[in-house]
Amino acid sequence: MRLRLFRHGKTMRNREKVPDIALLLTGNELISGELTDTNAVYLARKLADAGAMVRRKLVVGDCADDITDALVFLSRAHDIVIVNGGLGSTVDDLTAAVAATVSGKRLVERPEAIAHIAARFGGSIVAEKSPYFAQLRKQALIPEGAGLLDNPVGLALGFRLVINDALCFFTPGVPAELQAMFQQSILPEIRRQFQLQTAYRTYRLQLVGIGESQIQQLINQHLPKQVLQAVQLGFRAQSSIVELKMTIDDPTATVFLEEAQRQVRSLMAEFIFSETGSLPEALIDLLRTNNRRLVLAESCTGGLIASRLTAVPGASDVFEAGIVSYSNESKQRILTVSREEIDACGAVSEEVACAMVSGALKQTDANIGAAVTGIAGPGGGTAEKPVGTVYLAWGQMGDIRTRLMQVKRDRTLFQHLVCTAVMDILRRYLLGLNTDTVYYFDDVSRRRFLEAEGDSGEKSIKS
Amino acid sequence: MRLRLFRHGKTMRNREKVPDIALLLTGNELISGELTDTNAVYLARKLADAGAMVRRKLVVGDCADDITDALVFLSRAHDIVIVNGGLGSTVDDLTAAVAATVSGKRLVERPEAIAHIAARFGGSIVAEKSPYFAQLRKQALIPEGAGLLDNPVGLALGFRLVINDALCFFTPGVPAELQAMFQQSILPEIRRQFQLQTAYRTYRLQLVGIGESQIQQLINQHLPKQVLQAVQLGFRAQSSIVELKMTIDDPTATVFLEEAQRQVRSLMAEFIFSETGSLPEALIDLLRTNNRRLVLAESCTGGLIASRLTAVPGASDVFEAGIVSYSNESKQRILTVSREEIDACGAVSEEVACAMVSGALKQTDANIGAAVTGIAGPGGGTAEKPVGTVYLAWGQMGDIRTRLMQVKRDRTLFQHLVCTAVMDILRRYLLGLNTDTVYYFDDVSRRRFLEAEGDSGEKSIKS
Repeated sequence: MRLRLFRHGKTMRNREKVPDIALLLTGNELISGELTDTNAVYLARKLADAGAMVRRKLVVGDCADDITDALVFLSRAHDIVIVNGGLGSTVDDLTAAVAATVSGKRLVERPEAIAHIAARFGGSIVAEKSPYFAQLRKQALIPEGAGLLDNPVGLALGFRLVINDALCFFTPGVPAELQAMFQQSILPEIRRQFQLQTAYRTYRLQLVGIGESQIQQLINQHLPKQVLQAVQLGFRAQSSIVELKMTIDDPTATVFLEEAQRQVRSLMAEFIFSETGSLPEALIDLLRTNNRRLVLAESCTGGLIASRLTAVPGASDVFEAGIVSYSNESKQRILTVSREEIDACGAVSEEVACAMVSGALKQTDANIGAAVTGIAGPGGGTAEKPVGTVYLAWGQMGDIRTRLMQVKRDRTLFQHLVCTAVMDILRRYLLGLNTDTVYYFDDVSRRRFLEAEGDSGEKSIKS
Repeated sequence: MRLRLFRHGKTMRNREKVPDIALLLTGNELISGELTDTNAVYLARKLADAGAMVRRKLVVGDCADDITDALVFLSRAHDIVIVNGGLGSTVDDLTAAVAATVSGKRLVERPEAIAHIAARFGGSIVAEKSPYFAQLRKQALIPEGAGLLDNPVGLALGFRLVINDALCFFTPGVPAELQAMFQQSILPEIRRQFQLQTAYRTYRLQLVGIGESQIQQLINQHLPKQVLQAVQLGFRAQSSIVELKMTIDDPTATVFLEEAQRQVRSLMAEFIFSETGSLPEALIDLLRTNNRRLVLAESCTGGLIASRLTAVPGASDVFEAGIVSYSNESKQRILTVSREEIDACGAVSEEVACAMVSGALKQTDANIGAAVTGIAGPGGGTAEKPVGTVYLAWGQMGDIRTRLMQVKRDRTLFQHLVCTAVMDILRRYLLGLNTDTVYYFDDVSRRRFLEAEGDSGEKSIKS
């Protein structure tokens, strides 16, 4: 196999093109997993917004050899390298020394940096007397001839060097310092030196109750080849919610993007709840436009549904109350579920789920309600009602509907998936859509679906 | 400058050593900053706990050339490469094809993988008739001869290949699937093939109500120099909870680790709630040993406290019920708070917080309760009661206590910090500790603390 490590080498000397960018993040805490690299997320997002793309992100610990290798590797393969971290004053800050070595320059104390540190430290005369100043002085050691980048927030100046024909920026690890430096110095410099691609457009859709592979298949079956070639698809799935991203790089492809989104919207209408919003946000909007006030009676989800909804600003417009009736006594005393019903049917039953919604509606001024009672596990299952059994009930006075689900997942995932199902079923109820839809995580509906598939499959074979 | 890219090459053929590990994360959403790579954090942490270290983390988009380059680069330089993402069934899933190319093997449909997908999909006969199955079939395409890694949670099997003398694992991007595969197959395999560094010991403590810098300062002031030199400290803070990690690399330092943890335990006793458990777990244990059953009345936290507690298995032993009384009507109707009280004092008041706990205790069989009413924002603030104002009340019938806090944070963070405070105050109440402790995020207690500091500072100057 051919080695193509340096395939992206800068043979094109002119920079009339979209730059190929790499991020180099340094720090033991990033590599040990003690910290998520929010700086990389920040840079990638800001660069994408500006029409530039990060192509690689490399993370190494506070080890001079590893930083050296990484800087050589990335500077040979990319147009721009943004190095983050390791500009501080402690022993584990090694970036400036590495930059000097790799660029073949001397590390010198830059008077501008000394002045900056002294000024931020409280005036040069006071500062130089301080015992801390000697330690801070390390931050003024910067490769000779490097362009300095102002740090309006902190002590460490950044700097800029051309290494292996790549424009390399060296930035501090403190998020506020990096952000100020990026906005003030780095992005303007990139804009000066490169042609950023501002033409492309992205279109997003949020879907629930349909899987990535189903979406992909529907798209393959129904979208014209030309559209499929012009529009890049991206998928992201979390707790059974899928974000579909459709992107074009070329402004002439706009017509295909329009076509793609029109088709997807029509093919998957009932599953789409928003372009960029969350499911709780979509449900709250829907309750608002329908003049509904919601009450929840939660047992096995333990308040998760209420908590997800009330995390949204403005939830108080539509959220009346929630009752987490965890014990049988609280189901009786707060929700007026009868003792006889619990004894006869069990706390996890269609009857009790119904009684919970009715009780919640009676006890409050809400005009729509939902209840959920089930066995989240790991304990509490029986042969008849194993862990994962859950009854949902929803509706309004005189019109309560129910559904049995089987969600065989660990406790946390069970709670999150049931929470998604309840929100989606309320959404479907308000929109007049089928509330008996298939959820891949619900064995009851999945089994029914597969049996129906099997039947129709057989029929089509017979016919 | 000498190029040292492959300096870590596997000249040592025997694997009697700590492996040098690299992570390769793939996905456009990781590189565009749309998603933080929680999988990398998970892997780095679990590997560190097992005595192995991640040395590099490389992130690339869903681009076959970039994944190829990255895999070649990392497999040449490391003993182990864990590749994550891109094993799904959609067009942007490219990892298996790249693995085949780089390892010089053919991509073949593995019957074991077909059987796995069919089984998870609901039985092979039904499944193969489904129109979706064709799409899912892509996940069965795996390089010839690769060792398969079971996926007990999802459809995509992982696999294992030796490339450039490095042991490479290919894993799915869904966190639950990666985690199951890592625990069940990957870590045991690494343990079999390599000598992990097991000599060092780590000791962890979870603290609440004290900051990292306070902890560091107390340690610097009180721990002997020898101990400080022998024991490595690590901090991780999240939503005002700090994990302090004390590590030694050398078994002869055990005595210093013992000394360190004894000292820290005695210096910070009231702030330590567990070694490795979460605050909800610690509170549930404490309620259990005190034979208490808890009821919550939540307004501004909207069910978050109930939801955090009921996420813990066995919560039903001690959790009686929760009432999310979001509207004034529900405070009156469910919690029997009087209309007059709400009109006179406002829903966000000490009086109403008290009445909420009393009402919750009256309406249920619980013998301990807590209530919270406040203004989470962004709307709803007044000059007298600005956004961030929150009243807490807790206790038992005849002994209700209250506390006013000011938490000026955005809505989500406000809810999480208040949730932490309520859980910690219940913990302190049950342990007989001071419940008027300082929280850095609460301006009321912080102001009081700074004034007291100022006073004592002045006094010491005068004296």
